[in-house]
Amino acid sequence: MKPVPQTHIITADCPSRPGTVDVVTRFLYEQGFYINEIHSFDDTAEDRFFIRIEFRSDTETEFNRENFCQEFEQRAGEFEMQWQLASSSYKSKVVIMVSKHDHCLNDLLYRYRTGDLDIEIPAIISNHPDLKELAKWHGIPYYHLPISKETKPEQEAKVWQIIQDCEADLVVLARYMQVLSSDMCEKLAGKAINIHHSLLPGFKGARPYYQAYDRGIKLVGATAHYVSDDLDEGPIISQGVETVDHCYYPQDLAAKGRDIECLTLSRAVRCHIEHRIFMHGKKTVVFSK
Amino acid sequence: MKPVPQTHIITADCPSRPGTVDVVTRFLYEQGFYINEIHSFDDTAEDRFFIRIEFRSDTETEFNRENFCQEFEQRAGEFEMQWQLASSSYKSKVVIMVSKHDHCLNDLLYRYRTGDLDIEIPAIISNHPDLKELAKWHGIPYYHLPISKETKPEQEAKVWQIIQDCEADLVVLARYMQVLSSDMCEKLAGKAINIHHSLLPGFKGARPYYQAYDRGIKLVGATAHYVSDDLDEGPIISQGVETVDHCYYPQDLAAKGRDIECLTLSRAVRCHIEHRIFMHGKKTVVFSK
Amino acid sequence: MKPVPQTHIITADCPSRPGTVDVVTRFLYEQGFYINEIHSFDDTAEDRFFIRIEFRSDTETEFNRENFCQEFEQRAGEFEMQWQLASSSYKSKVVIMVSKHDHCLNDLLYRYRTGDLDIEIPAIISNHPDLKELAKWHGIPYYHLPISKETKPEQEAKVWQIIQDCEADLVVLARYMQVLSSDMCEKLAGKAINIHHSLLPGFKGARPYYQAYDRGIKLVGATAHYVSDDLDEGPIISQGVETVDHCYYPQDLAAKGRDIECLTLSRAVRCHIEHRIFMHGKKTVVFSK
Amino acid sequence: MKPVPQTHIITADCPSRPGTVDVVTRFLYEQGFYINEIHSFDDTAEDRFFIRIEFRSDTETEFNRENFCQEFEQRAGEFEMQWQLASSSYKSKVVIMVSKHDHCLNDLLYRYRTGDLDIEIPAIISNHPDLKELAKWHGIPYYHLPISKETKPEQEAKVWQIIQDCEADLVVLARYMQVLSSDMCEKLAGKAINIHHSLLPGFKGARPYYQAYDRGIKLVGATAHYVSDDLDEGPIISQGVETVDHCYYPQDLAAKGRDIECLTLSRAVRCHIEHRIFMHGKKTVVFSK
Repeated sequence: MKPVPQTHIITADCPSRPGTVDVVTRFLYEQGFYINEIHSFDDTAEDRFFIRIEFRSDTETEFNRENFCQEFEQRAGEFEMQWQLASSSYKSKVVIMVSKHDHCLNDLLYRYRTGDLDIEIPAIISNHPDLKELAKWHGIPYYHLPISKETKPEQEAKVWQIIQDCEADLVVLARYMQVLSSDMCEKLAGKAINIHHSLLPGFKGARPYYQAYDRGIKLVGATAHYVSDDLDEGPIISQGVETVDHCYYPQDLAAKGRDIECLTLSRAVRCHIEHRIFMHGKKTVVFSK
Repeated sequence: MKPVPQTHIITADCPSRPGTVDVVTRFLYEQGFYINEIHSFDDTAEDRFFIRIEFRSDTETEFNRENFCQEFEQRAGEFEMQWQLASSSYKSKVVIMVSKHDHCLNDLLYRYRTGDLDIEIPAIISNHPDLKELAKWHGIPYYHLPISKETKPEQEAKVWQIIQDCEADLVVLARYMQVLSSDMCEKLAGKAINIHHSLLPGFKGARPYYQAYDRGIKLVGATAHYVSDDLDEGPIISQGVETVDHCYYPQDLAAKGRDIECLTLSRAVRCHIEHRIFMHGKKTVVFSK
Repeated sequence: MKPVPQTHIITADCPSRPGTVDVVTRFLYEQGFYINEIHSFDDTAEDRFFIRIEFRSDTETEFNRENFCQEFEQRAGEFEMQWQLASSSYKSKVVIMVSKHDHCLNDLLYRYRTGDLDIEIPAIISNHPDLKELAKWHGIPYYHLPISKETKPEQEAKVWQIIQDCEADLVVLARYMQVLSSDMCEKLAGKAINIHHSLLPGFKGARPYYQAYDRGIKLVGATAHYVSDDLDEGPIISQGVETVDHCYYPQDLAAKGRDIECLTLSRAVRCHIEHRIFMHGKKTVVFSK
Repeated sequence: MKPVPQTHIITADCPSRPGTVDVVTRFLYEQGFYINEIHSFDDTAEDRFFIRIEFRSDTETEFNRENFCQEFEQRAGEFEMQWQLASSSYKSKVVIMVSKHDHCLNDLLYRYRTGDLDIEIPAIISNHPDLKELAKWHGIPYYHLPISKETKPEQEAKVWQIIQDCEADLVVLARYMQVLSSDMCEKLAGKAINIHHSLLPGFKGARPYYQAYDRGIKLVGATAHYVSDDLDEGPIISQGVETVDHCYYPQDLAAKGRDIECLTLSRAVRCHIEHRIFMHGKKTVVFSK
């Protein structure tokens, strides 16, 4: 029986110069791969080039990852290319952190359970015990790690240990209402996504729905971004929005916002695990579907 | 021949207490009017009540505005009601102020010309001469009033004179790139709408599309608000938004933003001239269609 | 201790004529109620008037429903008014019917569990056994009633029995992939909401995502409507939509569509249980928030 | 002085097989071009491959179009590639056809006048005289060609003559309320864009806003598509939509629809002149920005 062809994804970025596409596409051609999808962006303001290619083999030969990497590195080196290779069949390991609000967690778990998000969830970490049952029903270990000003370093050490033990590819702060330490932010750079319940840069910090209510906004939104040491200033991945009016008290904004948060966060997670996102200074390049 | 029934609009707000609806609806009933549309809002956080009613007479009796006002005031007084009466056949006089960008002006003129916005435009005022031809083609007087730091008080005096001479009901700052003085803001309180090319409160002040580009936003938007002395902090009337991605340089954001600005501003103007907006502290109540 | 004031909702429609608002608002005033919100619509094409009022008592007197109804009926009768009175504290009993796709069910159950939708779900009925566990986790009886061409009358009789036993206020077809008989449609007129996974009237009938794919649409959507005997022709309550492009195969449209279906259906259910919807011939009047 | 580098666009489609990307990217690399942007799509259902590449020369050598085409054709032939080469500095010649509704025309003229759409408009053709002044103000020849059942062949012959004389690259039916003959549709295949004021396939044919009103829709929209002999069945390019409710009579739907039509049509025109669209059977592949 013929094996199902496996799809791979190569992502790369490097200084802009002629040949940046060719060095990848020619290599793939020579190795006998078929390109499903190719997407590039050339940032002319920063002279930096980004490319994402999905490719597959139509032959029966098994994919030799080591060889591929070794050989491609020789060519990529000439272009000072930063590049990654991923297999689309690999299930990213996603650790979810949460406090008491469960809507984003519930949404991610549903997408996990049905395969809509093709991931593994090796751990859910919370500073509260409330959502244990939900985790349990999905058969996922739940780590209740309370936190206080005094115990923060200790708690974060435990969190980091779990992340490492799980070999997590991504940490999702699904309404985890604690500010991570600078040290933690650094360790998680480019690997942790937070959902903030406002249209950043508007309403940074605490209680954004209350801030939004006081300002009398007519659009309510949410922002998914990579965590950075600068609170609510990390690179934005996705944003969602809905119309509201004067009838919306803070709790109504929060209710409408919940749906937006779920959609915005899951979109960001999907883009991350499909290797569609590049960190680019304080911004992102996202080759979204 | 039977006269076409005229539609009137009464808007009122007052402290919340029983009878606030009844005092209006009973009066209209007693006077023999038919209510086309009624919309109310009770702000339970501030204990303030807002109501807007469209009504018409189905009889041949001509509408006696003076009588109506005199009699209704007696009842409204008991409720400390602030109220206005307007006729839907009255064409609001709208003075437009603009600098060099003509997209909002062009959009408003089109809606004016075709009757989509049922207004009169007695004057267009600009600190630049560039858009004179456009005004001329629409048969509207164009006042070129240059401005500099030194001449600002003088220029604003002229602007104010024109507004008064026109008996303007509304002043629209359709990308007028000058900050109005405190004095001018006060004079125009609740009667001047500005379009700001960002989703306020994000990117206040100068060059919002450049600010948005630097922040790497994934949604670009615009905000129409009443002018207040606090720059870009006036009560918000309407906001619009579209998705963007990393490909959008500032000029691309500006291009996409132009369409959003036009739609957001014209929506705010329409709500104002249809008496759908209440100023409510630093916010608005908008009974939009 | 002072009792918390209870909110009530009165909805009414009748032929258009002067006094239709007054008859309701004066009665409420005379009875000492405070009006929270009032919204009306006058269909000038059909000469029919619709009104929805939320009101509360600020006194300690308990609400005497029977008296209210008896007294108001006397006045309403003069206007040939059809009217209903509901208490906002009453939890509507919603029976959910489903086949194998669980996304809408899961979404409704989450909103039920968290109180976002303030309802009771006395029964989940399915022609398949697959979703039993999900129902069980939420503590809701699950009725597996298989159906075939031969057993349809018998199965529908059982379904109807459950609906009656539960005293269901609403039946939600949350991707129940069976066409109801004419008899069943008649029994459920105005009390059953279906979600169809297309922007009706486009792509009626079977496999709408495949139809949409074949047509090469650039927007995918969903429609919630009251069930009627005319398949996919019942009065529309709400519609939702998202952009797509050529990359979306039918399964991708289905994936994106799932989120739209959930939002569109839950919005319709919310409007129904909050008594915001009027059936109006083949259409609806929806006073949505 | 160094010449500003010119940007070119190559678009190609062919049966899917390995090497389809490489044959283009390698050629561009060998010729010393820099790739600004590359976007591909592989239709796995039809086994057809589509690619669009923007590239520029960073050297001073002038672009030799003839050579490029001759040499590339040799390689493209092996892949049975259909391909086109365009220069981004070329201004497409767009003939606009219109009847009496001027909103789309007005919108296109504004974008033309300000350079937002980088096109030439050598002619406006109408079956009515009404919009002559608008054309005149923009300095564009206006051809008034009335049409009746009897004169249709004759009128279309004149239209075709103008299109040919102008060497039009694109014909835009900006609310031209006449059905083109089969012969005309064939001549204009892939070169004529129509705007239909509904979300196709809903409400095909005449008076879609009235149809939509009768059906009680909660979303109103518009569809830009290539003209085909099958009325309102041509390949869809773009669709736009806005929410409405029971308050919208047909004329209100039309008013809201006008804005949607303008945005949807201009987006389609932009995609066409930027060579972002491929005809693909009864569908399109659109590499939109």
